[in-house]
Amino acid sequence: MSQLAGRTAENLQKVRQSKPLIHNITNFVVMNYTANVLLACGASPVMAHADNEVEEMVDHARALVLNIGTLTDGWVTTMIKAGRRASELGKPIILDPVGAGATQLRTNAVKAILAQTWVSVIRGNASEILSLAGTQTTAGGVDATNSVSEATEAAAVLARELGTTLAITGESDLVTDGRRSLRIHGGHGLMPYVTGTGCSATALIGAFHAVDKDPLVAAATALAFFGIAGESAGNRSAGPGSFMIHLLDALYTLTPEEVETRCRIEKI
Amino acid sequence: MSQLAGRTAENLQKVRQSKPLIHNITNFVVMNYTANVLLACGASPVMAHADNEVEEMVDHARALVLNIGTLTDGWVTTMIKAGRRASELGKPIILDPVGAGATQLRTNAVKAILAQTWVSVIRGNASEILSLAGTQTTAGGVDATNSVSEATEAAAVLARELGTTLAITGESDLVTDGRRSLRIHGGHGLMPYVTGTGCSATALIGAFHAVDKDPLVAAATALAFFGIAGESAGNRSAGPGSFMIHLLDALYTLTPEEVETRCRIEKI
Amino acid sequence: MSQLAGRTAENLQKVRQSKPLIHNITNFVVMNYTANVLLACGASPVMAHADNEVEEMVDHARALVLNIGTLTDGWVTTMIKAGRRASELGKPIILDPVGAGATQLRTNAVKAILAQTWVSVIRGNASEILSLAGTQTTAGGVDATNSVSEATEAAAVLARELGTTLAITGESDLVTDGRRSLRIHGGHGLMPYVTGTGCSATALIGAFHAVDKDPLVAAATALAFFGIAGESAGNRSAGPGSFMIHLLDALYTLTPEEVETRCRIEKI
Repeated sequence: MSQLAGRTAENLQKVRQSKPLIHNITNFVVMNYTANVLLACGASPVMAHADNEVEEMVDHARALVLNIGTLTDGWVTTMIKAGRRASELGKPIILDPVGAGATQLRTNAVKAILAQTWVSVIRGNASEILSLAGTQTTAGGVDATNSVSEATEAAAVLARELGTTLAITGESDLVTDGRRSLRIHGGHGLMPYVTGTGCSATALIGAFHAVDKDPLVAAATALAFFGIAGESAGNRSAGPGSFMIHLLDALYTLTPEEVETRCRIEKI
Repeated sequence: MSQLAGRTAENLQKVRQSKPLIHNITNFVVMNYTANVLLACGASPVMAHADNEVEEMVDHARALVLNIGTLTDGWVTTMIKAGRRASELGKPIILDPVGAGATQLRTNAVKAILAQTWVSVIRGNASEILSLAGTQTTAGGVDATNSVSEATEAAAVLARELGTTLAITGESDLVTDGRRSLRIHGGHGLMPYVTGTGCSATALIGAFHAVDKDPLVAAATALAFFGIAGESAGNRSAGPGSFMIHLLDALYTLTPEEVETRCRIEKI
Repeated sequence: MSQLAGRTAENLQKVRQSKPLIHNITNFVVMNYTANVLLACGASPVMAHADNEVEEMVDHARALVLNIGTLTDGWVTTMIKAGRRASELGKPIILDPVGAGATQLRTNAVKAILAQTWVSVIRGNASEILSLAGTQTTAGGVDATNSVSEATEAAAVLARELGTTLAITGESDLVTDGRRSLRIHGGHGLMPYVTGTGCSATALIGAFHAVDKDPLVAAATALAFFGIAGESAGNRSAGPGSFMIHLLDALYTLTPEEVETRCRIEKI
C-alpha cells in the first residue's frame, strides 16, 4: 500500500507543520505521557476537564480525545458536553474505551458517549472493543492484550452497527469502518510493558485526524507511524523504562522519508 | 536467609507468570510511575477510584493497594468501600500512609482505613509509620527519609497493636509482624531523589502478596527485589532521571537466579 | 552580572543544604515531573490540594506554588485558601497562569488569586502573561511559546500594575518587578517539546525563593540555573524523551562552580 505509506509521511509532515491543538479529556495515569507523545510528534496538547471550560477549549482545538480510564460520574457528563460541542462544530472525536467491559461504570459511559456524540474513531484493544458489542464481559486489566485475530470478523460488523471507525490494537493493528479494513504491522514487544502506550496511540490518531479528514486513513496512518516509532525504540532499549524514552525520541526524530519506506499498511 | 532468597526469586517468577491484577487507589503524583513499576515486574495494574466502580474492580483484582497521597475526603470513603470488599473476599490490602502525621486529614484517614478494613501490610518511611503510634507529629515532607533504626523497637510493638505487618523503608528496610522481624539490605542513594519510589515499593508488595499469602514474607521479598533492582539501576545512572528509567529496566530484566544470589534478607 | 552568577550558585547550594519543603497545588499533567525536578535540585516537594488540608501544609512549607492547569472551580477556592494562609505567614507564593487567556475559567481564576492573595512571582509564557493585561485573548495551546521580545515593554508596566514580579519565559527569559529588569539566557530548543518544563521552572522559582527573599533575584537565579541544566541536557539528547531524563540528571549533578561560570543574567 504505497499510497497509504505516502499518506502516513504526509500526515506526519502536516502535524509537524500545523501543530494542531488536540484537546484531551483523559485519565490521570497517562496525562503526562500522552502530552509528551503529542508534543514529540509535533502536535499541541491541552488537557482540560472542567465542566465550565471544555466547550471553550473545544472551540480552540482541532480534535477532541476522550479517554475513560480513572473515570468518575462527573467526567462522563463533561465528556459528553465537550463531545456535543465538537459534534456541532464537525471536529473529530476519538474515543478510548479503557477498561470497557470491566465495570458497569465504564461500559455505560461508552454507551452514553456514543449515543450523544459523533465519535469518529474508537481505539482500544480487542477485549475493550468487543465489549461494545456485548459479546465479552470478562476483564483482565486495562493493559491486557488479547488476540487481534479473534476480533477481525466481528469488528467490521460492529463498526457498521456503531457507525464509526474502529481501531483495534494488538500484535498487529486492525482498522475498519465496516466497509474498508486495513491491517497495520509494526510495534514492539515492550509496548504493553509501558502504561499509556495505547492511550497515546489514541491521542496520536487525534493529531492525524486533525490533518486528515478520512477517519480510517487517519487512524491507520497514525498507528503505522506509532508502530514504526515503536520498532525504532525497541531496537535500542534494555527494558520498558528506556523504551518509553526512546519512543518519544523516535516520534520526534523519524523523518517522513523513513516513515514512508518502513510503513506496512495492508488491505484486508 | 537462603530460604527467603529462594522465596524472593520464586515470588518474582509467580508474578511474571500469573500477571496478577493489582487494583490501586493511589495519588496523582505517582499513578503513572506506579503503573510502570507494576508492569515492569510483570503484574497487571489498574487504577480506579470511582465510588461506583471500586467494588467491581476489587472483584477482578488479586490485591488492593491504598495510598493516601493527594488525598481528599471523598477518596477516603471510596478507599474504605474498596477495602471492605477486599476484606470480605480475603484479598490482601496494602496501605501506604503517605504524609501521615503531617496533617490531620491524612492521620485521620489512616485511622479510619485501619478501623474499617483488614489491612495486611502498611509500608511507609519511619516518620509516617511512627505517626500511627502517635509518638511523632512533625512533618518534613512526604519524601523525607528518617532513620530506620530509631523505629526498630517501636515497630514490633506497633505491629502487634495494629494487628498488621509493618514495612518501614529507609537506608535499609525493616519488616515486622510483631512476632517475626526481618531487615532487608539493598537500594541506592538516588532512590529518595525520585518521587514515587516508596509508593511503587508499596504497589510491588501488593503484587508479591497476590502470589504469597504470608504478609511478612511477601513484603520482605518484594522489598528485597526492589532493593536489588535499585542497586542495579544506581550503578549505571548519572542522576535521578536516568535512575528512574534504569529502575524500570532492572525490574523487567533481572532474572530470578540473579535475584536469589544477590538477595540480602536478615532475621533480627 | 557576576554578582547574580554568584547568587545563583549560592541559592542552589542553599536549596541543596536546607531542602526547603515546597507546597505545590498544581495540575495533574505535571505533578510527577514537577516533584522530580524539585527533588533533583535538592528541594522537598509536597503536592496537596484537599480543602481541609492545605492550610496545615502551608504551615509546614517554605513556599507555595499555585498552577492553574487542569483547573476546576473547587481548586480555585482551595488555592485562594492556601494562598491567604501563605500571605498571612509571609511565605512566598509563585503563580503559574497555565493557559490564562484561553478560557474564561482560567483568566478569572488568575484574577481571583491575584486579588485575594499576595503573589510574589508570576511565571508564564508571553501569551499567558500578556493575557493578564487583557491585551491578548487568543490561545494557541498551553505549550505555545510566543516571542519574549514583544512582551518586554508591556511587562514592566504590568508588573507595577499587578504589584508583583513577572517571569516571562521563552527563547530567553525576562524577569521584571517593574523597577528592575533582567534577561536570562540559556535553555534548549527541546524544552518546549517536553510537557511541564515551564511548570517545573515555576516550582524551581519556589525553591529558590524559599532561600532568597528577593523575588526578582530568586526568579532570575532559578531560571538561570534551569537554563544551564537545559543546555547540559540538550547537548546529550537525541530527542525530547532523553532530554527530560537528562534534565533531571543535570539539575542533580551540576556543581555550584559550573553554574556560576556558565550563568548568563543580563541587566536590561
